[in-house]
Formats: sequence, C-alpha cells, structure tokens
Amino acid sequence: MPAKPAIPKGTRDFSPDEMQRRYHIFDTIKSVFTLYGYQPIETPAMENLSTLLGKYGDEGDRLLFRILNSGDFLSGIGSEELVSAGSSDLSGRICEKGLRYDLTVPFARYVVQHRNEITFPFKRFQIQPVWRADRPQKGRYREFYQCDADVIGSDSMINEYELVLIIREVFRRLGLKTLIKLNNRKILTGIAEIAGVGDRITDITVEIDKLDKTGIESVVEALRQKNIPEKSVEMIMPLLRLEGSADERLKHLEKIFAGSAAGLKGISEMRELFSYMNEEVSSGVELDLSLARGLNYYTGAIIEVKSLDMEIGSICGGGRYDDLAGIFGMEGVSGVGISFGADRIYDVMLQTGLFPPFSKTGTRILIVNFGGKELAYGQEIARLLRAKGIKTEVYPDAARMKKQFSYADSRHIPEVLIAGSDEISAGEVTLKEMAGGNQLRLKIDELLSRYE
Amino acid sequence: MPAKPAIPKGTRDFSPDEMQRRYHIFDTIKSVFTLYGYQPIETPAMENLSTLLGKYGDEGDRLLFRILNSGDFLSGIGSEELVSAGSSDLSGRICEKGLRYDLTVPFARYVVQHRNEITFPFKRFQIQPVWRADRPQKGRYREFYQCDADVIGSDSMINEYELVLIIREVFRRLGLKTLIKLNNRKILTGIAEIAGVGDRITDITVEIDKLDKTGIESVVEALRQKNIPEKSVEMIMPLLRLEGSADERLKHLEKIFAGSAAGLKGISEMRELFSYMNEEVSSGVELDLSLARGLNYYTGAIIEVKSLDMEIGSICGGGRYDDLAGIFGMEGVSGVGISFGADRIYDVMLQTGLFPPFSKTGTRILIVNFGGKELAYGQEIARLLRAKGIKTEVYPDAARMKKQFSYADSRHIPEVLIAGSDEISAGEVTLKEMAGGNQLRLKIDELLSRYE
Repeated sequence: MPAKPAIPKGTRDFSPDEMQRRYHIFDTIKSVFTLYGYQPIETPAMENLSTLLGKYGDEGDRLLFRILNSGDFLSGIGSEELVSAGSSDLSGRICEKGLRYDLTVPFARYVVQHRNEITFPFKRFQIQPVWRADRPQKGRYREFYQCDADVIGSDSMINEYELVLIIREVFRRLGLKTLIKLNNRKILTGIAEIAGVGDRITDITVEIDKLDKTGIESVVEALRQKNIPEKSVEMIMPLLRLEGSADERLKHLEKIFAGSAAGLKGISEMRELFSYMNEEVSSGVELDLSLARGLNYYTGAIIEVKSLDMEIGSICGGGRYDDLAGIFGMEGVSGVGISFGADRIYDVMLQTGLFPPFSKTGTRILIVNFGGKELAYGQEIARLLRAKGIKTEVYPDAARMKKQFSYADSRHIPEVLIAGSDEISAGEVTLKEMAGGNQLRLKIDELLSRYE
Repeated sequence: MPAKPAIPKGTRDFSPDEMQRRYHIFDTIKSVFTLYGYQPIETPAMENLSTLLGKYGDEGDRLLFRILNSGDFLSGIGSEELVSAGSSDLSGRICEKGLRYDLTVPFARYVVQHRNEITFPFKRFQIQPVWRADRPQKGRYREFYQCDADVIGSDSMINEYELVLIIREVFRRLGLKTLIKLNNRKILTGIAEIAGVGDRITDITVEIDKLDKTGIESVVEALRQKNIPEKSVEMIMPLLRLEGSADERLKHLEKIFAGSAAGLKGISEMRELFSYMNEEVSSGVELDLSLARGLNYYTGAIIEVKSLDMEIGSICGGGRYDDLAGIFGMEGVSGVGISFGADRIYDVMLQTGLFPPFSKTGTRILIVNFGGKELAYGQEIARLLRAKGIKTEVYPDAARMKKQFSYADSRHIPEVLIAGSDEISAGEVTLKEMAGGNQLRLKIDELLSRYE
C-alpha cells in the first residue's frame, strides 16, 4: 500500500460533524446579513498579482500564494536571466496570478471594476476562504474563511449603528456573550495632535494597539524607542486610560480637543453613533479609547468584539475606511465594514457547548433494512417522512441489526425505526430512541404526526 | 486613474443578483442531500501534487494549476539544472501543491486518510469550486463549482435508487423538467464480450458515448478506425439502438448474454434498480443502452440527466465505481455518486424564468430616511420588522426621496415605507408597493401582521 495520503501543511479537511457546526455559524451570519439588506457577492479565488501586490505591505506580498503560469512558463526567459534572477525576480516572470489574501482588496477591486453596474450605497457580504503562506501554528491556518460585510458609498453613521446591531444579533443567535468595543480613529488623531505628535499617529496607534496584550509599561517603552517625546507620552497615556462613562470621557476629551478639528469630529461621530442606540444596545457596547486595531486604513469608527465566554482575542472586528477603492483609482468613496472570525467563534462555541445537537442538523431517523418486503415497507415510510421534510436514511444493506444500530450511534442519529412482519401486518412501526433506549410502537400516521 | 482592474481570464465575479440565484440552487441541492442523510465535508483548495498527478490523464495533468513553493523556491537548484530543465521538469521542482481539479480525487484521498474515523457506508456531499487551466470559452470556466454526492462502502443498489430520488427531488424543487437516463457498464461489457471484443471495452465506450452528439455513421466509422472488426461493429450497433420498454430490451439482452457473466450481472443489477421504483419514479427514467459517459472508472450503474426545457447537454451525471480509493491504496471499496452541473442548471433556469422573484430572496422593505425624529421612528419600525424576520433596510442617508426610491427600484425591493410627521402622530406608516405604485396607510400592527 502506498504512503497514506496527506494534505498540505496548514490546511484542513472538515469532517461532517465539523461541517454541520460550521454551516450553523455561516448560515446564522448569512441570515443576519440579509436581514439588514446586505447582499452576497463572490469573487474568484485567483486574482491577478497586479491586484494583490503592494496592498498588504512587504510581509503580505511574501505571504501570497502564487500560481505558476500555465503551459511553457519559461518561454521568453533567456538562460542568462534565468540564472541571474533570484527566486523573487523570477516569480514575477513566471506567475501572473495569486490566491486572494483577504476579501477586502478583492471587494475594492470588484467595486471599481463594476462601478457602473452597482447601486450605491452598496451593502455587500462575502463568505469565502482566503490563503496566506504563513508559518502554520495552533489556530493559524494557510486556508481559512472570512465572513465580511461592508457598505460602501455612504458616510452615514447609521451604517456603523446597524453593523453593531448585526454583531449583536449574530452573537445572540449563536448564544455567545460578547462585549463590543468602539473607538474612532479621529479621536486617536486628536489625542496625538494635542500631544504635539500628530504626524506620528501611525507609529503611535501601532503601539497603542498592544496595550491590551503587553501592558502599559511595555507600550510606554515602545513609544520612547520610537522617539515619541517623553512629554507627549505623558499626555497620551492617561487619556487612553480615562475612567467613567462614555459620555463623561467624551466630555473630558472635548474640552482638551479645542485645537484639533479631527478630534472634535471624532467625538461628534461617536456621539451620533451612541445616540442611535437604545439602552439595551448600549449596555453591550463600550467606548475603548485604546482600541486601534493596527490597521492604518481605518479613518473613522473602529469596532472590536471580545468573547466573554473565553479568553481568545477578538472574534469580530472592523471599522470605517474613507478611501478603500482609492488603491484602484476610485477616490473618495467611504466604506465601513466588519469581519467575523469563524474559526475563533467555532472554538468558543465548541468549548462552551453552544452548538445545536446533531439531531437538529443531521439525520433524524434511520430505517433498519431487513431486505425483501420489509425493505419495501421501510422505503415507503422513508418516502412519507421525507415528504414531510424529516431527514431519513434507509440503511442500504440488509446487514446485521447490531451493525445498523452501531451506524446510527456513530452518526448521532437519534431514532431508529424497525418494521418487521409483525409491524407490517398491523400497519405500525417500532421506533427506538437511541438515548435511553425507549421503544415505542406507533401507527404510521402517529409516527408522521410526531414531527409536526 | 490607473487601468481599470480586471480578473484572470476564465474566472468570474458573481453579483448579488447572480448570487441570490446561485444560493437558491445550492441551498436546494444541499437540503435534498441532507434529507437523504448525505453529510457535508470540505477539503482544502490546495492538494499536494502527488495526490493530483496521474489521476486525470496527461491532459488533466497539464490542466492543473500549480502553486509556486513559498520562500526561496529556487534553493537547491543549480544553475546547470535550471538552464537544462524545461518548464515541465522545473515545475516539478518548484511546485509541490496544486489546486483541486475535481471533488472526486480529493474525496478518495479524504476517505483513505480518515478511514479510521469514518463510519461506512459513508454518504458525503461536497459543494466547492474546482480549477482547470482549460482554454476559456462560452460556458467553460477556469473556476467553477461542483456539487457532488457519493456513498462509499456499500454495494447495495438502494444507493443508486436513492440517488435517482435525490435527482428527481432536486429538479422538482427547482422546477426543471428532466429525463433521467440509466445504463450499466456491465451491460456494455456484455455487449462487447458477445461481439468478441471484450478486451476493447474502453475504446468502444469512448466512441459509443458520442452517439448522441455525432450520430451513428460517425461512431461506426470511428470504431472501424480503431480496428474493431466489422462483424463486431455490426453486432454492437443494433443492440445499442434496441427499441421497446426497458423490460423488453433487458429480456432481449438476457437471451444473448448467455456467454457473458458480466452482461448477466448488469441485467440483474438494472432489474433490481428498476424494482425499487414506483410507477411515478420510473416514468421519469429511461434505460439508454448507448449511455457510457466516457469515464472509465464507472463499473456499474451509469446515470445522466437531460434537461427537457432546453438543449444543453447533461445537467447531472454519475455512476458506480468499484475501486475509487484504490488509487490511494485502499482496495475494494465500492462507491456510487452523482454530480450536479450548477452552471448549466443556472443557465436553464435563467432562460426559462424559473428563479424565484427577488422579493422572496432579497430585501423586502426599504424605510425612507428623512433624518431627525422621523429617522428614529423608522429605525424602531425596522427593529420590529427585523424581529419578525422581515428583511428590512433603512436608507442610510437623508437623501432626496427620488434617490431613495431609485435605490429601491434598482435593488428590486418591492415595498417602500414612508413615515413623516403625519404618520408618526397617527402611529401609522405609508407603504408603497413599487410594482403598480399602490399606496397603503397602515397602523404599525397592521404592517407587522401583513407578513405572517
């Protein structure tokens, strides 16, 4: 026998049990997206490298999976060039396409390419895998799904508000307890400006973003390393750690933001966003002035969701970016979006037992196969059950009962139906509940009405 | 502005309208698969080339998309080797992975890799894209979805029977008229054997498969070209074109198959399969002795579905293969499966107007945004509608009415809700039906009960 086949490192097969759980997550996210008018699109797995390169920084470029050109990919490359080119030069000559790295850049490309067919504001969602040639490690894969919703072409904070509602509804339906953290990039800009380091906002947000993980001393040290003046650091840090309600902290900042138009705009945006929330919604939301999410394309709202069930980092995040499609030459179209982390949500739900039982998602009844006329009777019952939408299997072979029961058991099928000559002559069936072993004798119409 | 971005040739973006139609097809197929106990799996887009190569013939190997190894892919390759190696040798040195070409080989790989976790018979379905570096042309893409259901580890013809039921149910739900054609590879073997050319069965089926497209003369000519003796051709052709009911034709063949064990087995398998069908089922099924489907791995039943709505070739096909996992060293595990052609089904449904209206799949109501307290009132109504599962949008900006209506129109939203100060003071709303322009004044609870 040849060596056992395997899959590339960092990739995964998903078994039926895993898939049923994953469908539960994806279907929930999908239903909530559509409930709020977000519409699906899909883009190809492969994009031209010209679309992808330079959009994710040097590190991102390195992590792109490149597709070898089909056919004679060396044609037109002389021996001299072949020998003198390094891997990185040569890859540019022999690969034109790469696998998508995220869903945001393909979305921006889609919007620009189809601008004349799209009605703006354009609310789209997209649930597709992405690929990154990262070093695989626990919880980090080379192929994983992203679940993104973005609206492009509207500046209104109603969009941010509804994204908060979407996040709440998705996690309510999934049964996860969460805290939604909000901030606004303009407030961070305001803080940097009044600390006299408005031009260093990128360096500062990158470090602030680590506050949660590495703690205050380490962030202060990093800011010093980056030559942020001591006085500025001393102004910034206490502001990030202000106490009090959102309202109180925004009032405090408003006073000291007199010299920063950006800062004042950030406060007014944040107030508008909070003004849409009723008490129930705002009770699950927190203003976190240290929230930065590292991504420099955020220009307004910043959103991050923490699981309260488990320590696992963020399970959803997003924000507003004023110029996403600008990378493809379509300027000034503002967008705001969120992305759910399906793998982390999966882990939290599995560990806290939040998935629905397989009896809800998988086969409900297995009909034992005795062959002959018992089989014909069983097949007719299968037909009736399926016509009512009850997921039903007929065991395909007239195997030993024990084997058929053990199949039901390992497939998590909750009920097994037995119909031998006794049952047939009475127009009945015997139904065995696998959990507990309870056995019922039912008329066929009693059986069918059980599932109404 | 830079050049308008584009996607690789042979790939497609799917717009929201297209996606809603595609979801309708995929969701229907998925529900029917699970109704019969088929369970989802997913495998990675990338497989090791050692898994893929040699499984699809030389042509298939050429059509695989290969992924350039990450990092310094040239390391360990000397200049001499680099210059002397052609494209095809070099690709073996610089690529270890490829994109999957179909779902069958990854499924076989999955079964062998996970054999100890799987309960047999294993009924799995898989709906994922595949990639082929084919020359793009009308209706042929480099990325397309396959929708496969296979059961592995059971020889019973109950599986074939239920696959026929699944096909019927999928197309009944989608509203397509179809004819299901059935044959059995063993019958073809029997025909070849009694014609004295049992060792040429592969050559013969390849040509027979074209009977539908190229006609009888052309097939006869091709068989002659392949040196099938004239006498054999004269025996084979009339048998393929026997007339009469399935029963009559099987009886005829049975008489002349006395010397062919395979032929007789094929007849008994076909009879067993027909014996499970009631009159309604068998009325949509036809025995087609010329059906071969070219694929040489079929060993038993062969299935093909034709649309009766449109001339478009096969929209679903499949069959039994006795040794699929044998390519990965797991011998003697029989399987049978079908695959739905989503792109062709899409084309038939679009041309014959079979897709459900967008009002069923997309946003149902758009709430006009007037800003201020009207907006607050509208948002509260949106909350109530969404709580009842009604897909609702609030237009995010307080734009001109005309713009908001034109948004509803181009998004196919059937109803627009207007609530100004008049409506608010009466606790009412005005609902405008976009088709026909009918306008209703409703109390809020009247509005909500409309959708029960």
